[in-house]
Amino acid sequence: MLQDTSLLRIPGPTPIPPSVQRAMDQPMIGHRGIETKELLGRIKPKLKPVFGTEQDVLIMTGSGTSGLETAVVNTTKARDEVLVIVTGSFGDRFAKICEAYQLVVHRLEVTWGEAVDPEQVREFLQKNPQIKVVFATFCETSTGVLNPVAAISKAVHENSDALVVVDGVSCVGGVEAKMDEWEIDMLVTGSQKAMMLPAGLAFVAASKQAWQVIEANQQPRFYLDLRKYRDNLADNSTPFTPALSLLFGLEQALALMEQEGLQKVYERHMTMMAMLRGAITALGIPLLTKTEAASPTVTAIHPENFDPEQLRKQVKQEFGLAIAGGQQHLKGKIIRIGHMGYCAPQDVLQIISLLELGIQRLGKRIALGQGVIAAQEIYLDARREANHDI
Amino acid sequence: MLQDTSLLRIPGPTPIPPSVQRAMDQPMIGHRGIETKELLGRIKPKLKPVFGTEQDVLIMTGSGTSGLETAVVNTTKARDEVLVIVTGSFGDRFAKICEAYQLVVHRLEVTWGEAVDPEQVREFLQKNPQIKVVFATFCETSTGVLNPVAAISKAVHENSDALVVVDGVSCVGGVEAKMDEWEIDMLVTGSQKAMMLPAGLAFVAASKQAWQVIEANQQPRFYLDLRKYRDNLADNSTPFTPALSLLFGLEQALALMEQEGLQKVYERHMTMMAMLRGAITALGIPLLTKTEAASPTVTAIHPENFDPEQLRKQVKQEFGLAIAGGQQHLKGKIIRIGHMGYCAPQDVLQIISLLELGIQRLGKRIALGQGVIAAQEIYLDARREANHDI
Repeated sequence: MLQDTSLLRIPGPTPIPPSVQRAMDQPMIGHRGIETKELLGRIKPKLKPVFGTEQDVLIMTGSGTSGLETAVVNTTKARDEVLVIVTGSFGDRFAKICEAYQLVVHRLEVTWGEAVDPEQVREFLQKNPQIKVVFATFCETSTGVLNPVAAISKAVHENSDALVVVDGVSCVGGVEAKMDEWEIDMLVTGSQKAMMLPAGLAFVAASKQAWQVIEANQQPRFYLDLRKYRDNLADNSTPFTPALSLLFGLEQALALMEQEGLQKVYERHMTMMAMLRGAITALGIPLLTKTEAASPTVTAIHPENFDPEQLRKQVKQEFGLAIAGGQQHLKGKIIRIGHMGYCAPQDVLQIISLLELGIQRLGKRIALGQGVIAAQEIYLDARREANHDI
Repeated sequence: MLQDTSLLRIPGPTPIPPSVQRAMDQPMIGHRGIETKELLGRIKPKLKPVFGTEQDVLIMTGSGTSGLETAVVNTTKARDEVLVIVTGSFGDRFAKICEAYQLVVHRLEVTWGEAVDPEQVREFLQKNPQIKVVFATFCETSTGVLNPVAAISKAVHENSDALVVVDGVSCVGGVEAKMDEWEIDMLVTGSQKAMMLPAGLAFVAASKQAWQVIEANQQPRFYLDLRKYRDNLADNSTPFTPALSLLFGLEQALALMEQEGLQKVYERHMTMMAMLRGAITALGIPLLTKTEAASPTVTAIHPENFDPEQLRKQVKQEFGLAIAGGQQHLKGKIIRIGHMGYCAPQDVLQIISLLELGIQRLGKRIALGQGVIAAQEIYLDARREANHDI
């Protein structure tokens, strides 16, 4: 195989756009100098529309999980009762963080591959008004499910005073988030998914209601104390040394999103999801999730006639195409394909043509090209509908 | 459209592999220091198999045209009679360089899109034994024709003492060259095609017979004097300041070719050609060249039912896919697609799927996916035949 070929299509980390890479290659600067202040000053207003909030989006140096832990330690203290909606392994991680801090954790377990029904959340809160925080996952990366966080938030707020904290790691930037309108109290994401950056930054925004809780909360915390980030960002600064090269990249990634237009970014992700799902269906391969529960950023397929792990190995070795397998009890059973951030319909067509070849190369019969045709037709329909550039 | 998307599929410059880009990003060094000597010492033996020669391949700082002019000024002087085989615009350029130096130029003009018939060369030399040099183009970039340079060389040497000088710019590195075995006296290429580098380097190797002519040649020359390059390279040096970052990249590009294996590199290019030609044929679009005259590195198509320039504009604007148009009298009539260097079958599938969409977007009927299917089948056949990695 041609060396140096890498088609990174796992659900994060995702490929870095060349201009973002170049931006990150800038010479290092001092983190307390005027350049950093100006950089943060330029970034600050551009993050808000991505979150759909008027609140400042705080920038932390850490992985997405550090953002999730930040949400927990800033909104809760030991023995608080919380509800964690678990639709996959990242919901499970949220619950594990809560358990580590000795919260009283109620898990609302949902079959993996399905979205939570907001009515279940409503019923739970009607019976358990003592719940302090509800933790939900927007896109569950382990299954490709997009949970209805607007409806979840509504169900919570109509029945309790609980805060709604949302893990948006594998979709914010690729899927529209309306944090303020949906009355989400805290929204968290990471840099290495739809934000088109390497891992290393976590982004957290909190509502006014959340800030009241955060201010009053006695939970010990230092690096993850959101108050420090808020007070520093007010002055275009950070409490601790920031990952400056990632901030250079962030400015350019936000510029790319602005140039394309955020609505167009979201449409592109919807089109990619529809193309891939249409292709997989045309090839007669079952999808893990139903259309109404599917995320525009990651798609899970549940093959019956070939071994997912064999296909992953085949396309990696033969084409340099990296796709992900299943986690926990879905390990070895599903394939997850990331189509977010620096990914376009032209890449989805390539992925599909290579999946077709890979399956054929495993010795399985497949109708070559039928996935590509389905995706091409869906693309053309989307273009006709939009009647403008995607 | 997602900004920052660039699918560069013109017949050169071609995309740069990431590891080559990183190699070029190394800190600058002194061109007379030990590092440069060591670098040239490592590069020198690795260029020879790419040219198929035991001679040193000399490295000049300049475009491919500087390499062609080097070939002319080192092997000829004013009023020498030469034969230039013109199968397209780069054969024409060779002739123009010869004319600029006041050589007596005989042009063997061949219909664009066809390869030269070696018998024509044989007949010409039988009638014109006074010819000093025969200039031929290996891959004619303007038409995607691969001329039979081995047979041309044989026809020349069997009928005259003329040197055979070959422009290998758009194929050497992607197509097997056996300079010594084919008795080619001078072979020239550039860095920005199958060599996977930016433009800026020209490579020239000369046979023992050619060196005798070069030594005796009185043509005034300085920067392009091959003797200077030969004498310096013997000491792992260059006569003038070399483009060091390109040399950094060259070492890595050669390493990539070595890792893949040169035969595999050539097979990959053959497979890509077959895939693209099969796809275009399946879509009912005429090809400019016949299969026996086709180059593994560039393919020209000659559409009847849509405007080539409109398609180029459409796929560039909609997908960031850059493909080339025709030159001189083929301007506006053909499309040329580069598939050389940092390009693999997975990229060819993507190109085809986007050409199909682009034609459809022009409002022309096309059987979506039929090109992709043809290419997939050709790929699978090639793999079965090879029974090993491409």
